[in-house]
Amino acid sequence: MAGNSLPQPVQRLIDELARLPGIGPKSAARLTFFLLRAGDKQALELAQALQQMKERTRFCSVCFNITEQDPCLICSNDGRNQQLLCVVEEPLDLLALERSRGFDGRYHVLHGAISPVEGIGPEDLKVAELIERVKNGDFTELIIATNPTLEGESTALYLKRRLEGLGVQVTGLARGLSVGGDLEYTDEITLGRALEGRREL
Amino acid sequence: MAGNSLPQPVQRLIDELARLPGIGPKSAARLTFFLLRAGDKQALELAQALQQMKERTRFCSVCFNITEQDPCLICSNDGRNQQLLCVVEEPLDLLALERSRGFDGRYHVLHGAISPVEGIGPEDLKVAELIERVKNGDFTELIIATNPTLEGESTALYLKRRLEGLGVQVTGLARGLSVGGDLEYTDEITLGRALEGRREL
Repeated sequence: MAGNSLPQPVQRLIDELARLPGIGPKSAARLTFFLLRAGDKQALELAQALQQMKERTRFCSVCFNITEQDPCLICSNDGRNQQLLCVVEEPLDLLALERSRGFDGRYHVLHGAISPVEGIGPEDLKVAELIERVKNGDFTELIIATNPTLEGESTALYLKRRLEGLGVQVTGLARGLSVGGDLEYTDEITLGRALEGRREL
Repeated sequence: MAGNSLPQPVQRLIDELARLPGIGPKSAARLTFFLLRAGDKQALELAQALQQMKERTRFCSVCFNITEQDPCLICSNDGRNQQLLCVVEEPLDLLALERSRGFDGRYHVLHGAISPVEGIGPEDLKVAELIERVKNGDFTELIIATNPTLEGESTALYLKRRLEGLGVQVTGLARGLSVGGDLEYTDEITLGRALEGRREL
């Protein structure tokens, strides 16, 4: 090192880490020093994991889920309902729905939600691909399962408008109390939505 | 993917990232999806940066600073004062002191501070190496420049006790007002220390 700067390979790792979302220069330095101190094995395993992920996985060309084979196992499974399409923000949302065992149709992963604050518009998401897919497909119902956040709800409304006139019913997940939750501690907006959506017992 | 789990290479990267300090499973997944969506280049550059850092840098066997050559440029510079030793927590602290141009002695990097909360004791730091170095060296003054935090101050006190009887003067950096700062907005503890350490003008 030149005496008043870090060795170039160390600075380079800090710079690369600082390019990741949510990691500033300070955390990047902290992570780098952690990896310097950790055994050689940990840094090299991380490097290997990065390479392998890039080499062995891709996005499904139909639903844009992450997959090792294209089309993915869900898209190539003819046993699933071909007329139901569920739109999610992220691959992990898809996994959560699969774990609920409540859905056996197809998925479409948007890879994010519309967020003017973060500068994310429909063109940054797999929206055009969704419209195309609905136009060419044989779907009767489209379940928009974006997150119950401002961004997720805006994205749902935007999609509903874009999908009008394509002859497909557009639905959204119910809002209400969490199962096993506590009414007393449920926030007022959720409680309002739970009242609105009340059902006969 | 098996339908209800992520492809193994993706899960592996999430697991590796989640092993880093301050990155939980949720941020690890967020980072992984970011890297999946980013161009191949970014993930591979990060992998390369990790490998290079591990291959090309090590800790100086004398002062434990990060270096590309051992001993480091500071330790092998005979033009610097051989009797002054400055103890810092991290390599970045050393760089900050070098930038101040206020010190031309040697350094010793502890690689952290004592923190019972985080389970970091003296045996996890380069403390034994420091004692050994002071015993075998020809130092007249040891400046303990740990951070002005609870952990840093405890570490300084601990070191002072361990260094007693070794015939070396132990000093610490002055506490006081920040140059260019505002008295009105200086916290009360710093102000107290500034009063305590007042000097004749």
